[in-house]
Amino acid sequence: MLIVKKFGGTSVADKERIYNVAKRCIEDYYAGNDVVVVLSAMGKYTDELLDMAHDISEKPPKREVDMLLTVGEQISVSLMAMAMNELRVPAVSLNAFQVSMHSTSDHGNARLKRIDTERILRELENRKIVLVTGFQGVNKFDDYTTLGRGGSDTTAVALAAALHADACEIYTDVDGIYTADPRLVPTARKLKEITYDEMLDLATLGAGVLHNRSVEMAKKYSVPLVVRSSLNNNEGTVVKEEISVERMLISGVALDTDAVRIAVIGLKDVPGTAFKVFDVLAKKKINVDVILQSIGRSGTKDISFTVHKNDLDEAVAALEAARARLGFKELHAVKSIAKLSIVGAGMMSNPGVAAKMFESLYNAGVNINMISTSEIRVTVLINEKDGIRAMNAVHDAFDLAD
Amino acid sequence: MLIVKKFGGTSVADKERIYNVAKRCIEDYYAGNDVVVVLSAMGKYTDELLDMAHDISEKPPKREVDMLLTVGEQISVSLMAMAMNELRVPAVSLNAFQVSMHSTSDHGNARLKRIDTERILRELENRKIVLVTGFQGVNKFDDYTTLGRGGSDTTAVALAAALHADACEIYTDVDGIYTADPRLVPTARKLKEITYDEMLDLATLGAGVLHNRSVEMAKKYSVPLVVRSSLNNNEGTVVKEEISVERMLISGVALDTDAVRIAVIGLKDVPGTAFKVFDVLAKKKINVDVILQSIGRSGTKDISFTVHKNDLDEAVAALEAARARLGFKELHAVKSIAKLSIVGAGMMSNPGVAAKMFESLYNAGVNINMISTSEIRVTVLINEKDGIRAMNAVHDAFDLAD
Repeated sequence: MLIVKKFGGTSVADKERIYNVAKRCIEDYYAGNDVVVVLSAMGKYTDELLDMAHDISEKPPKREVDMLLTVGEQISVSLMAMAMNELRVPAVSLNAFQVSMHSTSDHGNARLKRIDTERILRELENRKIVLVTGFQGVNKFDDYTTLGRGGSDTTAVALAAALHADACEIYTDVDGIYTADPRLVPTARKLKEITYDEMLDLATLGAGVLHNRSVEMAKKYSVPLVVRSSLNNNEGTVVKEEISVERMLISGVALDTDAVRIAVIGLKDVPGTAFKVFDVLAKKKINVDVILQSIGRSGTKDISFTVHKNDLDEAVAALEAARARLGFKELHAVKSIAKLSIVGAGMMSNPGVAAKMFESLYNAGVNINMISTSEIRVTVLINEKDGIRAMNAVHDAFDLAD
Repeated sequence: MLIVKKFGGTSVADKERIYNVAKRCIEDYYAGNDVVVVLSAMGKYTDELLDMAHDISEKPPKREVDMLLTVGEQISVSLMAMAMNELRVPAVSLNAFQVSMHSTSDHGNARLKRIDTERILRELENRKIVLVTGFQGVNKFDDYTTLGRGGSDTTAVALAAALHADACEIYTDVDGIYTADPRLVPTARKLKEITYDEMLDLATLGAGVLHNRSVEMAKKYSVPLVVRSSLNNNEGTVVKEEISVERMLISGVALDTDAVRIAVIGLKDVPGTAFKVFDVLAKKKINVDVILQSIGRSGTKDISFTVHKNDLDEAVAALEAARARLGFKELHAVKSIAKLSIVGAGMMSNPGVAAKMFESLYNAGVNINMISTSEIRVTVLINEKDGIRAMNAVHDAFDLAD
């Protein structure tokens, strides 16, 4: 078997943990497998490097930030290779240049385009464990790029796809995917299996175990993912196209408190208004979610939507700059909101799932501001203070508890 | 003009110094020059990385040590690029992969073979300051190498040669090359000029400003070097083939206290004995210096020589292992010795220089153990405790004082 294993920064934060990961990989190696390991930078080292950059320059060039950040993973893989060699197992570390990890040019948020597998396959043939720097690529100008949040997961999935790996294991500090965040919902239960699509909705909605770009890639190339804990040997959750067990109505409940709501009040009620509003934001590459359009007073209309809180200032500035052209009266931003979602492939064949969610929120006395749905997801916007209570109420209502 | 400037770790140890170096390079840039800057790792960061490696493994694989160490210079060049951009001057940082800095495969002590100048020239054409990681190369297996002690100087000289630079400036924490180490000889005077050969002898003999590999390369490719201080604007010392001023008898006095003396006593007095002794050491890549062979008692002979103190244990072990084959009686090591040398191209045309040195040592009551000479150098082995006194006596005798 060819196994790709990915360990995050917490798993390689110090000498003891590095050796734990080394031993774990060596088990698979001695069982006769080919082992490729993707590592992130140690602990909070990427943040420390960013602090160094911002100490030098308020707005450092993104190309140079990537040049700086890529050292983090290179330190991890070289130290890991030393640990494995100390344990008498041959290992070799490779960075994005050595693997030829081709990416787009978008510094800080690049996408992997193509991976040359030649060097990795040669090292595997020589029975080495191959350690690859996560999170980084090289663009067509021969410059380092980084892949943005969750980039090392993407590296692992892309490698698994390119190498036609038999398994891609993502090691994290949780046991797997839960029906809800166990820190917020004590009765949350670990899922044995989940579909790519469900996982995509959960990742987007703030469950935060896997980044959606890595799940998208896993779906595209049918890479079977396993999410496991690096701290124990529990089985973890398998992410795949179709799940085999008789399925529950919904798989999970996710709460996202990183959204803010923007309301554009008193727009002219003529065709194209909504397009113009969202075009202004799209040009700034701001993602918009949960949109509500309603009729305002005296022939005007109002448009509300959510954006990530980090994008709030830029979104407001962009809209204000276009105020004359868009012709709105007021602009409001509400920060104290939460997005609560239920996700489940099962809801496609079961009407009434949304209604059941709304009923449970009504019973819990939680007010719903806005609603958005997809085939396998229902999202409601509620007040932030109600978030955790609402999450537990919905979790109970769908019998997800352990 | 195309200028290559090299700054060591002390010069980029913190934010303030990084900005000082940036401003210094920008002056040359605004004067219309093409500027290429070679940097070492910040302060003692290379040592910190080595500590990390040795914390993980007592004897880490050299290939992985190089993979780890190369991050040091990459941090320096990316931070410097940020500082220059903050000062509104376009700069770009490049590592050994991006420059294609081809080297031999000898990890930890590689030699540069060939540098592709295409990327650097393209960036210079775009009027960017080009920042290059010192100390590192890439071997034919596409693996990182490091160039050993003084490696960043070698990088700078090699770049200057490949780019046909008009000047190669080595910035250090001293003003230039002195007639003797000013910390040991208070009256030492800074030299305006010195020849490559003199500099080679001084570097080898422990003057320590420039590593001899970089001087050898400068000589080979006729790269005019300037050694200057990064802390002031003093003129520095020019290192070149022929020096133009009417020259002094000798250029400098060097003291090396890093040597130890090994005596092999009671060897059979037959042909090939000396060859066999030094062959044992050569096979361990141990450099031998100041050799003395003398007739011992009852038809035997003794051989004495010096090695670097770091090589002492290995040298003794190698000789002991070959004891039966070499057939010697005793092996002595003396640690408390010093090598005192005078260097000067002028001595070729002036007989009596060695005699003058011996006379000054006699007058100072310093005992000479062994003598070794070359065309432009005289070296004597003395007791370590006499070192500084002897150095000052010789310095005075040749009227080198300020």
